[in-house]
Amino acid sequence: MSFETISEQRCFGGVQGFYRHASKETGGTMKFGVFRPPLADGETAPVLYYLAGLTCNEETFVIKAGAQRLAAELGVILVTPDTSPRDTGIDGATGDWEFGEAAGFYLDATTPAFAKRFRMYSYVTQELPKIISTQFAAADLERESIFGHSMGGHGALTIALKNPDRYRSVSAFAPIVAPSEVPWGQKALPRYLGDDRTTWQPYDACALIKGGAKFPGTILVDQGYSDKFLEPQLQPERFDRACRDAGQALTLRLHAGYDHSYYFISTFMEDHLLHHAQALLG
Amino acid sequence: MSFETISEQRCFGGVQGFYRHASKETGGTMKFGVFRPPLADGETAPVLYYLAGLTCNEETFVIKAGAQRLAAELGVILVTPDTSPRDTGIDGATGDWEFGEAAGFYLDATTPAFAKRFRMYSYVTQELPKIISTQFAAADLERESIFGHSMGGHGALTIALKNPDRYRSVSAFAPIVAPSEVPWGQKALPRYLGDDRTTWQPYDACALIKGGAKFPGTILVDQGYSDKFLEPQLQPERFDRACRDAGQALTLRLHAGYDHSYYFISTFMEDHLLHHAQALLG
Repeated sequence: MSFETISEQRCFGGVQGFYRHASKETGGTMKFGVFRPPLADGETAPVLYYLAGLTCNEETFVIKAGAQRLAAELGVILVTPDTSPRDTGIDGATGDWEFGEAAGFYLDATTPAFAKRFRMYSYVTQELPKIISTQFAAADLERESIFGHSMGGHGALTIALKNPDRYRSVSAFAPIVAPSEVPWGQKALPRYLGDDRTTWQPYDACALIKGGAKFPGTILVDQGYSDKFLEPQLQPERFDRACRDAGQALTLRLHAGYDHSYYFISTFMEDHLLHHAQALLG
Repeated sequence: MSFETISEQRCFGGVQGFYRHASKETGGTMKFGVFRPPLADGETAPVLYYLAGLTCNEETFVIKAGAQRLAAELGVILVTPDTSPRDTGIDGATGDWEFGEAAGFYLDATTPAFAKRFRMYSYVTQELPKIISTQFAAADLERESIFGHSMGGHGALTIALKNPDRYRSVSAFAPIVAPSEVPWGQKALPRYLGDDRTTWQPYDACALIKGGAKFPGTILVDQGYSDKFLEPQLQPERFDRACRDAGQALTLRLHAGYDHSYYFISTFMEDHLLHHAQALLG
């Protein structure tokens, strides 16, 4: 099995598919979703990656975010990877929703237990785009953008900040912006990367900004005030401060009443898709 | 417990809630969802009921249909009941996805085993609206419409045809239109209603039309051609023929490539919401 179609279903004139393939980076089978908008024969479309949060998989966004309607209209391909390798058999990789499977944190692990399988950074930035390029003729990999939610917002921000020439735009819903400073990151980063905090820096959006990383476009971040993770885990004011200090353009919007769920995400999905369309199609 | 809020979450400026209550009609606890659009203090909004299909519950539409965006914009309250009573303990009511729990067929059962609990017709048409009226001050029960999917499309059509002065509009996605003539109905109706087929007629949209029932507005039905249940279970041509013969206004749209899923439903959700908004708000 190198590449298999799990399902393809018509949706808003395009096709919502799920696929699986043998992944070299993560040493196992990976699943992902692709929404292709309606396109004329030979027409190509830019690619927008969405990285999901803790406990989610390649289906979560596809089912709950309500993004296909506008993606179809705009002519944007949506790619939704899983959140980690699966069935790893690694001791400690299951049984904790904040760490391990479904909690890959979009990094390349270096600790002996996790280094072979937990390579979501290389998977998302290298292997998955190659698969998309090979399997989907309509995908124009010269035009890529990235966004995500919570742990996936952390993934989108850090990936874009480390590859500012690669991605045309980046945005996030309720992202983890400073994993080195909050419990989710302080649990995951040492187990994936070891105790030397200098190795965490490339996977911490605030630390990247402070270290001089810069994204050429405005970063869009939406956050709900009724998000129970706002204070303990998310702390967007850290990112706001870091961006201000460094002169990084950021639109941070705080919304009364909204929580951490896909009811929040779907509400502001249109704004994010338009943000990316402007960069991808403008 | 007479009425309890399970959860309420901000969504598109309104509130998506889930609730449970002790139901007299079905003799147990029933759950349902309500989406309230953003409304000014004291403002009211019409109520649109959505009846889900086999295997679904009160959450399915809420998570997958992408209806809240336009309902918020139009100012329509969405009410999503469960598809049957639950935890009935009745022999034969679980273990078969086509019959019993999650397969209530929106009828009032008369057979001894099911008559006490399986009263979804009375629940949806009488008890649930009273609960909505009592618990949600913004709900204007003088303006009600109804739609549904598959078994829920059957429910919406039969309920509207039996109450043509009550509901202002009706529509369905891939409905069962002639349960008396197809395997799903032929399995469920005798077990709920007995073997006398004349008792099935009030729960068969084609039979109702043939028997003289008429809905004052145009009925809207969407159906996908790649729906695996199209030929064995749905057969919309039966309804088309019955409506033509009886002079019932029907818009039946058949869509190449679409299947029975919520990818199909979400694609045409906007058309259905506008259909109902015209009747409810026009």
